[in-house]
Amino acid sequence: MTASRILLLVLDGISDRPCRELGHLTPLQAANTPVLDRIAREGICGIMDTIGAGVRPGSDTSHLSLLGYDPKSCYTGRGPLEALGCGIRMEPGMIGFRCNYATIGSDGRVLDRRAGRIHRTQPLSEAIEEGVDLSSLGVSFVFRSGAGHRAALALKGNRLGANVSSNDPKKEGLFPMQVRPLTEREEDRRTADACNEFVRQSKEVLEKHPLNRERIARGEPPANLVLVRGAGEMGHIEPFGERYGLEGSVISAAALVTGIGRAVGLEHVSVEGATGSMDTNLEGKVRAAIGELGRREFVLMNIKGADEASHDGLAREKAAFIERIDASLQPLEELEGVLLVICGDHSTPCAIREHSADPVPVVIHGDGVRTDGVASFDEISCANGGLHRISGLSLMPIALDLINKAHKYGA
Amino acid sequence: MTASRILLLVLDGISDRPCRELGHLTPLQAANTPVLDRIAREGICGIMDTIGAGVRPGSDTSHLSLLGYDPKSCYTGRGPLEALGCGIRMEPGMIGFRCNYATIGSDGRVLDRRAGRIHRTQPLSEAIEEGVDLSSLGVSFVFRSGAGHRAALALKGNRLGANVSSNDPKKEGLFPMQVRPLTEREEDRRTADACNEFVRQSKEVLEKHPLNRERIARGEPPANLVLVRGAGEMGHIEPFGERYGLEGSVISAAALVTGIGRAVGLEHVSVEGATGSMDTNLEGKVRAAIGELGRREFVLMNIKGADEASHDGLAREKAAFIERIDASLQPLEELEGVLLVICGDHSTPCAIREHSADPVPVVIHGDGVRTDGVASFDEISCANGGLHRISGLSLMPIALDLINKAHKYGA
Repeated sequence: MTASRILLLVLDGISDRPCRELGHLTPLQAANTPVLDRIAREGICGIMDTIGAGVRPGSDTSHLSLLGYDPKSCYTGRGPLEALGCGIRMEPGMIGFRCNYATIGSDGRVLDRRAGRIHRTQPLSEAIEEGVDLSSLGVSFVFRSGAGHRAALALKGNRLGANVSSNDPKKEGLFPMQVRPLTEREEDRRTADACNEFVRQSKEVLEKHPLNRERIARGEPPANLVLVRGAGEMGHIEPFGERYGLEGSVISAAALVTGIGRAVGLEHVSVEGATGSMDTNLEGKVRAAIGELGRREFVLMNIKGADEASHDGLAREKAAFIERIDASLQPLEELEGVLLVICGDHSTPCAIREHSADPVPVVIHGDGVRTDGVASFDEISCANGGLHRISGLSLMPIALDLINKAHKYGA
Repeated sequence: MTASRILLLVLDGISDRPCRELGHLTPLQAANTPVLDRIAREGICGIMDTIGAGVRPGSDTSHLSLLGYDPKSCYTGRGPLEALGCGIRMEPGMIGFRCNYATIGSDGRVLDRRAGRIHRTQPLSEAIEEGVDLSSLGVSFVFRSGAGHRAALALKGNRLGANVSSNDPKKEGLFPMQVRPLTEREEDRRTADACNEFVRQSKEVLEKHPLNRERIARGEPPANLVLVRGAGEMGHIEPFGERYGLEGSVISAAALVTGIGRAVGLEHVSVEGATGSMDTNLEGKVRAAIGELGRREFVLMNIKGADEASHDGLAREKAAFIERIDASLQPLEELEGVLLVICGDHSTPCAIREHSADPVPVVIHGDGVRTDGVASFDEISCANGGLHRISGLSLMPIALDLINKAHKYGA
C-alpha cells in the first residue's frame, strides 16, 4: 500500500566528521543503532546537502530548505522566525527580533549577556508588554519569552525597515550600544528609534520588577536589560497546505524550528518534558508524532540534543544520545501507510563545535522505495545509497512523489 | 587538528578516456602512482564537472570555476587573462588580446601563423612598444611577449569596446584580415581602428628589426606580423583575499593559468626550470608550493605537461609523465595542517587530442574528511567516492568549510 502520510524526522546536528576519541568513527558510526540501521536496510539512503554543496547551513535555513522552501528567496533573517517560535503571530511587514534577557551593572556595563541563564521569564515579559508604550512613535509591539534567557520582539507600524543594528555589545564588560539604522532610509531610522525606546522603557520596567529584586536578594544576576538583534521583516511564505495540499504539525522544542514550522503553516504540538536538550522526553515526542499522524498528513519532528552535544564537543555523549534516540524510535516500526524520512539538518562536527557543510545522511523508508544495499544509517554508509547526493530542496518533492502527491510536469 | 591552509593542485588535462594503446585503461589507471593512490585511500574522492555536466571547459574557464568564480559572470574572453599572464597590469575597462608572432610572405599572405615557433621575442616586443604610437586615436597600449611565439596586447582609452573580430585568417596561405567592429557601436569601431593601426605600425617596426634580418639570413621565417585575437574587456573580479579571507599564491608556467591567478589576486611565484611542458622542474614546483604554504593560506599549483602529451595524442608518454608527477608529490605527504585538494581542470583524451567534458577525478585529503573506500586516484575509481559528482564551483566552498573558513548561512 502506497504511503499517504509523511513523517519527516530531523535529527538536528546528528552528522559529524570522524572523531579521534571514537577511533576515527563518527558518533553515528560508533553508536549502536539497530532501529536506524534496520530502517536504512529496508529503505533507500543517500547523502544530502541541505542547502548546497559547501554551504554551511543554519538550523533555520536548513529546515526551510528541507520543507521545500528555498531560503534564498524566503529567508528574512532569524528575528521573525524566532518571534514565530515564541508564539508571536507574525504578519507580513512586521519586524521581528531575537532577544536576550541580560544583566547590566550599576555603571551600565553588560555583566552577563544571559542574566545567569535565567529561566521562566514570562512574568517579566508580561510586565514589559504592559509597561512599555511605543504609540507615540506610531508603533505597536508584541514581546514574548522563549526558552531560558531568550525572548522575541515584534514591531508593527507603518513603514518600518529591518536594516538596523543591535544593542548587543557581544562581549561582557562593554556598554550596550544604540540601535542604529544601517541605511539612510527613513523606515530604518523609525525602527531604530522604536528599538531604542523599547530598550529604555523595558529597562525601567525590569529594574523595579519584584522577580529581579528577589534574584538580587538571592545573589543572582537580575534580568534588567533586553538585548535585541537579528532584525528581519516578515515576508510572505506560501502556506504549506496550499503548496502541498497536506495539513501538517511540527513537534520541536527548539524555538527556531518551531518558528519555521509556524512560518510555513504547520501547527505546533507541545510535548511534556521536551526540552531541546539531551534530557528531553524522546518517547513522548515519538508518541506525539504517531498521534499526529493519525489526524495529519505531514509531521515534522526535530530532535535537538545531538546538536547540543556537538556544540559542546562531546563526541561520546553524542554517540550515547544517538543510542537513546534509536531506542525511542522503535514504535515507528509499527507505523503503516507512513513514509518515514530521517535525516540531519546539517553536520555539527564535535571537533569544531559548529555547523559544517559536510553532507548529512538521509533515509526514506516506506512502501515503494527502491531498497539499496546500505545497511547502516551513518554518513559514510549512506554515501553509497541509491539516492546518491541530493539537495535539501529536492527532499519534499521526492517524498511527495512517493505518496503520490506530486504534480505532473507535462503531459 | 583541523587544517588551516589549502593546496589546490591542478593536474592539467590529466584525465582521459580508456586508451586502446593502454589496453583500454586511462593513462591515470595505467600509470603506477603510489603517492596519489595513498592520498586517495586516506582522503575523500569524487568526480567533478569543472563547469557543468557536458560542458567542455577551457583551461581558463575551468580554473576560474575551481577558484570559485563563476565563469558565466566573470569570464570576459581569453585576451584579458592572457594579458595578465604575460605580466600586463590589466585595469577594469582595458581591452586585452592574445597575440601571435606570425610570418607573412612578400605577397602579403600568412606563411606561418607561429613564425617558425619563434622563441625569445622580447626584443621584438620592446621595439614595438617603443615604435608604435596610437595616441592620435586617443589610445595607449601595452604589448608583452609570452611563451614561444605568443604575446599579448592591451589597449587603454576612453570608451573602447571589445566586440571586434581578429586579423588572424586561421589558415596559412591566406591574407591577414582587417579587424572589424562586430556591432554598430562607436566603442567597437574605435577598438577595431586601434587594432588595425597597431598591426600596420608594428609590421613596419618588425620588418626593419635586426633580429628578423638575422632570422632571414639563417633561413628562418621572420616574425613580421602580429595576429591579434580573443578581444575581451577586463572586468571587475572580487579579489580572492576579500572573498575568502585568504592570501594566496599561484605556481604555474602556463600564462593563461598565471593570468587567472593574477586576475583573482593571487601572487605569481616563478620556479626555475618550470616550462609548462613535460620537461618541467616538477620537484622545484612542489618545493616552491611547500615554501609558499609556510607564509600563505592558499596555493594554486598547476602542472601542465599531461595536457600537452594529450594534445599530441601520446597516451604512453602521458602515463609516464603521470608517474613522474606522482614521484614528485612525495614531499606533500609530510605536510601538516594543510588541506590537499588534487584534481584535473578538464579531461584531454589522447584519442581526440582536445579537451572533453568527461568529469575529472578529485580527492580531498586532510584532517576531518570522511574517508571513503576509494584506493586509487583515477577517473573510474573516484566515481565511487564519498564526494559523488560535484561541480567545480562547489570545490572552494567545500574546501573552505573543511578549514573552518566558510560563512554560516542562517543561524
